[in-house]
Amino acid sequence: MTARQAYESLVAHSRESADLGAALSLLSWDQQVMLPPAAHPGRAAQIGALTAILHRRATDPRLGEWLAACEADAPREPGTPEAANIREWRRDFDLAVKIPEDLAVALARAASAGQRAWEFARKENDFKAFAPHLQELLELSRRKAEAIGYAGEAYDALLDTYEPGETAASVAPILAELRDASKALLEAVKDAPAPKPLPAGPYPVAAQQALLADITSLLGLPPDASRLDVSAHPFSTLIGPGDARITVRYDAADFTKALFGAVHETGHALYSLGHDSGDGRHGTPMGEFASLGVHESQSRLWENQVARSLPFWEHVLPLAVARFPALSGLSPEELFAAVSAIRPGLIRVDADETTYNPHIVLRFELELALVRGDLAVADLPGAWNEKSREILGLAAPRDAEGCLQDVHWSMGAFGYFPTYSLGNVYAACLFEAARAALPGLDAAMAAGSFRPLLDWLRANIHEKGRLSRPRDLIAAATGESPTAGPLIRHLQAKAKAVYGL
Amino acid sequence: MTARQAYESLVAHSRESADLGAALSLLSWDQQVMLPPAAHPGRAAQIGALTAILHRRATDPRLGEWLAACEADAPREPGTPEAANIREWRRDFDLAVKIPEDLAVALARAASAGQRAWEFARKENDFKAFAPHLQELLELSRRKAEAIGYAGEAYDALLDTYEPGETAASVAPILAELRDASKALLEAVKDAPAPKPLPAGPYPVAAQQALLADITSLLGLPPDASRLDVSAHPFSTLIGPGDARITVRYDAADFTKALFGAVHETGHALYSLGHDSGDGRHGTPMGEFASLGVHESQSRLWENQVARSLPFWEHVLPLAVARFPALSGLSPEELFAAVSAIRPGLIRVDADETTYNPHIVLRFELELALVRGDLAVADLPGAWNEKSREILGLAAPRDAEGCLQDVHWSMGAFGYFPTYSLGNVYAACLFEAARAALPGLDAAMAAGSFRPLLDWLRANIHEKGRLSRPRDLIAAATGESPTAGPLIRHLQAKAKAVYGL
Repeated sequence: MTARQAYESLVAHSRESADLGAALSLLSWDQQVMLPPAAHPGRAAQIGALTAILHRRATDPRLGEWLAACEADAPREPGTPEAANIREWRRDFDLAVKIPEDLAVALARAASAGQRAWEFARKENDFKAFAPHLQELLELSRRKAEAIGYAGEAYDALLDTYEPGETAASVAPILAELRDASKALLEAVKDAPAPKPLPAGPYPVAAQQALLADITSLLGLPPDASRLDVSAHPFSTLIGPGDARITVRYDAADFTKALFGAVHETGHALYSLGHDSGDGRHGTPMGEFASLGVHESQSRLWENQVARSLPFWEHVLPLAVARFPALSGLSPEELFAAVSAIRPGLIRVDADETTYNPHIVLRFELELALVRGDLAVADLPGAWNEKSREILGLAAPRDAEGCLQDVHWSMGAFGYFPTYSLGNVYAACLFEAARAALPGLDAAMAAGSFRPLLDWLRANIHEKGRLSRPRDLIAAATGESPTAGPLIRHLQAKAKAVYGL
Repeated sequence: MTARQAYESLVAHSRESADLGAALSLLSWDQQVMLPPAAHPGRAAQIGALTAILHRRATDPRLGEWLAACEADAPREPGTPEAANIREWRRDFDLAVKIPEDLAVALARAASAGQRAWEFARKENDFKAFAPHLQELLELSRRKAEAIGYAGEAYDALLDTYEPGETAASVAPILAELRDASKALLEAVKDAPAPKPLPAGPYPVAAQQALLADITSLLGLPPDASRLDVSAHPFSTLIGPGDARITVRYDAADFTKALFGAVHETGHALYSLGHDSGDGRHGTPMGEFASLGVHESQSRLWENQVARSLPFWEHVLPLAVARFPALSGLSPEELFAAVSAIRPGLIRVDADETTYNPHIVLRFELELALVRGDLAVADLPGAWNEKSREILGLAAPRDAEGCLQDVHWSMGAFGYFPTYSLGNVYAACLFEAARAALPGLDAAMAAGSFRPLLDWLRANIHEKGRLSRPRDLIAAATGESPTAGPLIRHLQAKAKAVYGL
């Protein structure tokens, strides 16, 4: 077997797995959007059967042989797409074979049971009912970290599966910087008059749908390669080439909820369509997303840097007024201010841009303590409120609005939360760089032209797939290593514009 | 390995294949109902990848070992569910391994190319462009028949894959009897005054949708275990347990098209939900449909014996009038007559009950001649019109409305058409038996009660899965071997009621 043959075998195997993965993505999308209620137990079995097939493929010993043949060959120039594919296939294969099958099965089962228990616990505000599940998931996750291995600490192994190259030590200073900057801003605006809230409507759902179709298309989401549907929890998924699907949830009293949700998910979808563009990269690492943090940077950039900007509303407000007469008479400045208000609250997913990152700091510090064994599961609710008071200045009256509010830990996803803040940081870095690279970007957006921005993101991020580690990818796009600076400057500028600081 | 262990292995393997098959069904449903246009090439690759997995599973040599262990065991009492499962697994396995992989791949490719060519040819009315594809599909199908083997002739092997136990010789007399009876009826009503057509509407699509939701639920389709969507070609599919999906196409000028389409597909869906009821039979032959003919008997029974009956319209007309004021003043008798009119035409899918079976006879005789080599592909258009004149009294002015009107041959589905007429025959046999077993059935239907009929079908057909060969299944349900008699009596009775013959 020549190295060339081995490489081609890897491409074919990887692509077939991607095509089977598309079926798995569809089973999941359909479950959240279309599935008749009586079909849920059957769907779980279908997802289980296909997941097992994909796990067997991911640990196929032939992958090891093909990789060895490629690696033994004269080393490919680092930084080429082929070299990146081989490096990333190696990463995926090693990760898959390091986790023993019994552990993978135990984790999947505990995550499934944990989610059901969490739903119940949140509904009933009953942390004790959830605690044993959290304990089991924590122990299994520690076993997983040991199986994967790490240089620093167990948490690093978990975080690295979501954000290659990151560690607790590498994200902690960024998060601390964001926490302090947000705290200073919250303190600064505390006594300033709040922006005027938007009129109470009405915002009929059909009109919202029509507006979202206009806006997602305006931002560059091709209608012939996407869908917009409704689900209880908004999400974005790429089923396969040319098939990006997003969902929203409508609130007839507040059109901005679905709007920012749709723009956020459109950012994810644009990234997915951009790195998986149907050419030879499909089904190889070069046609996949770089990390959760990079994925989130794309959704956040469109949601916050674009759709919560004054230029955006200069173009979009007339479109919105045409759909919602209740908005007549508002100025773009008033709309921009209303959607940029700073209002600390208990719930992460409802948080404004400034308060969002402190929510992540809270979770990061607590999950790190849990994984390290410095915090007992039983002590989580108390620790949550203590830290929440310290970081956000608020404590949850009920665990349902406190440590039970997020799904992540119930799925065993420890190390996931930091990727949200990394996404915010990367979004600000990229937007600052795009603005520098594209003179007149604000004027273009105010004129309804978002194509230059999308093209810049396509060329600098989307088409790079898994070519580089996330920080290197951002650095290559912006010309400097990512820091919290651009995000902090962005938040300060908004606070100044909205609150006159 | 004990026979018990072998049986349990077969159940587990069969069930996992069924769960993977559900993903394949979903890929296909989604393709026809939801898929963004740009995603079609990717979807074809996804379907191909999963089909290959399922083919490998269907020919897994362990199946042969498990089956041998079961068969070597003391023979199970024939007629028990376990005996039926073993018999049907054996049938499926032998069929799968008899067809060499290269032939299976060639057939799949030719069918895919054939469908594309057929769509083009039908649109352009260009038989010559389609002829080479038909030739190749015919040759591959003959090779398939030789690979499967047969006692009588090659056509039998093909027909048997759709309708176990049937042969050209076994269906020919039934079809001939139907042809002659239909001819006599067409002749008899030729000069009788036609029933008054329905008003031209309007029939707004939203009102049609609401009416269909009422009617499908009235007939017993549970809303929490089904979906009703729109597609270019109406169809029914069971994705998995508790997940029966049907589609319709709306015509704002004629509400009966979507209505009879929905009732037809509801019949399929009720059968699917009835034999695959989520208990231990799921994923085994006892939880699968018996044949295409039996499946069609369920759709036709609800469409023709039920929804084209006077009692049905006695209950449903007021519901329809509430949605469509244009129908005010019509009597149930007038509606019954309008939807029972006999109007010979060129297009099979638009045919009335009386004209439908002659369309099948035409196709059966031509495909039989093609497979036998008695008819050359190039001579098909001429032979079609000659036979069409003889059987229907009509010739197609364009091949698009003649031998190019159906998709079946373009997929290599030779031997499929007779299952439609067998379905009509079985539907009439079953309805006659149900009526005898359920005194007051007409009155119940006129009162909107369809549950007794559904329960009878559940007990006698749906829950039997693949317990018996189709004819034996119908005989067990009705007490006598199926014949064309009940269908002919049904058509004669309708002609009498509508045309006063």
